[in-house]
Amino acid sequence: MTIQERKSIPIPQVEARVPIPQQNLRIPGPTTVPPVILAEMARPMINHRGPEFAAIMRRVTPRLQYFFQTASPVLTYPASGTGGQESAIANLFSAGDHIVVITIGSFGNRLAKIAETYGLQVSRIEFPWGQAADPDIVEARLKTFKPYSGVLMTHNETSTGVMNDVQTLAALVRRLAPDTLIVVDAVSSLGCVPMEMDPWDVDVVFTGSQKGWMTPPGLMMIAASPRAWEASKAARLPRFYFDWASSRKKLELGQHPTTPPISIFYALDLALEMMLAEGREAIFARHQRIGDYVRLRAKAMGLQLLADHAYASNTVTAVMTPEGVDTKAMLKKLREQDRIVLGGGQEHLDGKIFRVGHLGFFQHAELVEAMDAVEKRLHEFGFKG
Amino acid sequence: MTIQERKSIPIPQVEARVPIPQQNLRIPGPTTVPPVILAEMARPMINHRGPEFAAIMRRVTPRLQYFFQTASPVLTYPASGTGGQESAIANLFSAGDHIVVITIGSFGNRLAKIAETYGLQVSRIEFPWGQAADPDIVEARLKTFKPYSGVLMTHNETSTGVMNDVQTLAALVRRLAPDTLIVVDAVSSLGCVPMEMDPWDVDVVFTGSQKGWMTPPGLMMIAASPRAWEASKAARLPRFYFDWASSRKKLELGQHPTTPPISIFYALDLALEMMLAEGREAIFARHQRIGDYVRLRAKAMGLQLLADHAYASNTVTAVMTPEGVDTKAMLKKLREQDRIVLGGGQEHLDGKIFRVGHLGFFQHAELVEAMDAVEKRLHEFGFKG
Repeated sequence: MTIQERKSIPIPQVEARVPIPQQNLRIPGPTTVPPVILAEMARPMINHRGPEFAAIMRRVTPRLQYFFQTASPVLTYPASGTGGQESAIANLFSAGDHIVVITIGSFGNRLAKIAETYGLQVSRIEFPWGQAADPDIVEARLKTFKPYSGVLMTHNETSTGVMNDVQTLAALVRRLAPDTLIVVDAVSSLGCVPMEMDPWDVDVVFTGSQKGWMTPPGLMMIAASPRAWEASKAARLPRFYFDWASSRKKLELGQHPTTPPISIFYALDLALEMMLAEGREAIFARHQRIGDYVRLRAKAMGLQLLADHAYASNTVTAVMTPEGVDTKAMLKKLREQDRIVLGGGQEHLDGKIFRVGHLGFFQHAELVEAMDAVEKRLHEFGFKG
Repeated sequence: MTIQERKSIPIPQVEARVPIPQQNLRIPGPTTVPPVILAEMARPMINHRGPEFAAIMRRVTPRLQYFFQTASPVLTYPASGTGGQESAIANLFSAGDHIVVITIGSFGNRLAKIAETYGLQVSRIEFPWGQAADPDIVEARLKTFKPYSGVLMTHNETSTGVMNDVQTLAALVRRLAPDTLIVVDAVSSLGCVPMEMDPWDVDVVFTGSQKGWMTPPGLMMIAASPRAWEASKAARLPRFYFDWASSRKKLELGQHPTTPPISIFYALDLALEMMLAEGREAIFARHQRIGDYVRLRAKAMGLQLLADHAYASNTVTAVMTPEGVDTKAMLKKLREQDRIVLGGGQEHLDGKIFRVGHLGFFQHAELVEAMDAVEKRLHEFGFKG
C-alpha cells in the first residue's frame, strides 16, 4: 500500500455530553472533593518552572512530610497509586533480588506482580482476603526465607477493607533483618489514620491524591528513608519517569523533572491547609467514628463484614452481600434511583461484596443516607435480615 | 535508636497562599486553557468504573483517533509527555535491541537517554540545535548501521522550535527497513499541525494534554499501529504502569487499569468538542498564521531565530537573545511588570534564547501584546536593533 492509498480517519459521530447529577459518591477513591477545593481546580495555568509553582511546592512539601511523619523529601509524580508501587520497586532493587511481599488482597498481589514483572524473586506471605497479616505467622515465615532485600506490604488493603498493623510488622521485620527495606503502600490510609514513616522506621511510603487528601486523582506522592536512598544508588532496575534522584534534584528548585499536573497541585495546596486547620488527630478521630458507624449499621442490619473485626479499616468497609441478593443489580439501583455510588468487589469477590468508602472528605449525614438506602434496597432485593 | 526515641515531625510553618494575577502565559506548555474548559475542571468526582466515565471515554477515544489519524486505540495514562517516551520504549523493545534516535534537541536526546537507561543499544543521528533532520543525511547514516529494530524521533522539538518533516523521514525509513518501528514524539505538535499516523505509516505516536489540547497537564495519550502491537508481544523490557495490553483491555470497558485523572478527562472531553467545532484544518491554519506572525515580528525587530526558516515550528518560536541583553533579567521583567510569561532556553541554550509558545488556545492579540512587550523590554535592556 503506498502512502497515498492509506485510509484517512473521518470525523467520528459520538453521543452528546449530558450533565451528571449530583451524587453521594461513596467509593474508596476517587473520593468526594469539597466544592471549595474543586473551585481551585478551575484556576488558570502557570509556568511549572516559575516562582508561583515553586511557592506551591514550598507549602505542599513540608506539609506532606508532616502527614507522612518523615524528614525525607516527599516526591510527587503525575501518576496513580500503582505508579507508587512501580516507583518503589524500580528505585530500590536489581533484577534477581529476593524480596518478600506480605499480601492480604488485590493491591498486595499487585505489588508482587510488579516485582515479578521487573525480574525480582518474590516470596509471598499470603493471608485470606478479609484477614490482616498475622505478625506471628509473618515472623515464622520470614525466618524460613533465605536473605531478602525488602519486605513490601499494603497498609490499608482497599480491596478488602482490612488494615495491617504496620507498626508491629515493621518492628518485627527490622528485628529479624535490620538492613532490609520496608515498603508500605499507604495509598488509601495516609492522611486518614496513623501512619508514621520515620517513627516506625519504614523505608518507603506512598499514597495517591484521590484517597485521603480531598483532591482529585492524578498525583502520586512518595517518600524514601536515608536507607532507601542509599539502596537506590545501587539499584539497577531501569527507571526514568519514576526515578527518584532526578525528582529530588528538581524539588530543590521547586520544580519537577517533567510537567507536573498543576491543577491538582492547586487542589492539594488548599486541601493540606484545610487538613491542618482540622488537625491530624481530629481527622484520625473523624475516620475512627465513621468507621465505627458504618460497621455498626451494617451489623445492626444483620450483615456480615468481610474484614476481621480487629483489623477493620477506618477508610473503607467491605460488606458481604446476603445470600440471594444480586449485588450488581442492587448497586445499579442505588446509583440510578438513590444517586448513591458504592464500590463492588474485585477479582473473586466480584458480585459477593460491596464496598463503602469513608475517607477524605465526608459528612456524617452522607454515610447515614448511604446506609439507610442500602438497608431499604437490600430488603427490596429479598434480604430478610 | 528504639522506636520510641525516633523523632516525630512537627507542624511546619509555611508562607501564606497569595492570589496569582492573571497572566499572558506564552510558554510552550502548560498552555493557556480557555475559561470554559477550566470550569469543567471544577466538576465533582465520579466513579472511574461507572457509566458516566465510560461515556466520556466513548467520546474522547474516537475523537483522539481522528486527531491522531489512526484506526488504532488511543491509550491514556496519568503522566507527562516523558511518560509517553518511556511507554513507547518499554512496550516495543527488549534489552540489547539496537535502535536509532534522530535527535535535533533536548527531547530527542531524552528519547535516547531513556532507551539507554533501559539497556538498548542506541545509535544517534544528531543535528545541531536549531536545525531539522536532513533526510539525505538520515538516509546515508541509516545505510551504515547494522540492523535496527526502531527509529525514534521528535516531530516538534520544543527546546528549539524546529519541526521535523516526519512524513518524509518516515517514508525513507520505511523504504530502507520495511519492518522497523517508527516512533514519533508528537507531544508539542499533535492537534496543532498535520501529523497523520496511519497515512504516514508511523507506528507509535504520543502527546500530552498540556500542549495543543487546551487542557491542563496530567494526561499522556499514545497510539500504536498493528505492527507495534505485534512487536509489543515479543518485547521483554519490564513495564507495568505504562503497559499497553492492560490499558487496551480496560479501554474496551471504558475504563483504565488504575485510577485515571478524572478532572482532566472532563476538560479534554470539552476541548475535543471545541476543536471539532473549530475544525482540524482551521486549527492548523490558525497555528500557521500565528507562527508566521511571531517569526515576522521577531525578524522585523532585527532578531535572529534559532530555527532554520524552512523548518520553523508553528507551535513554539525560539528567539536568539541579542548580544549584551541579559535574558533572565528581561524575562523576569516581562513576567513581573507586563504579566507576560515566556520560556527560557534549555541546557546549553539557557540564557541564550527565549521561547514564545503559540499552541493550543490563543488569541492573536495575546501574541501581539507579547511581542510588543518583548520589543519594548529588549530596548530597555540595551538592544539597538
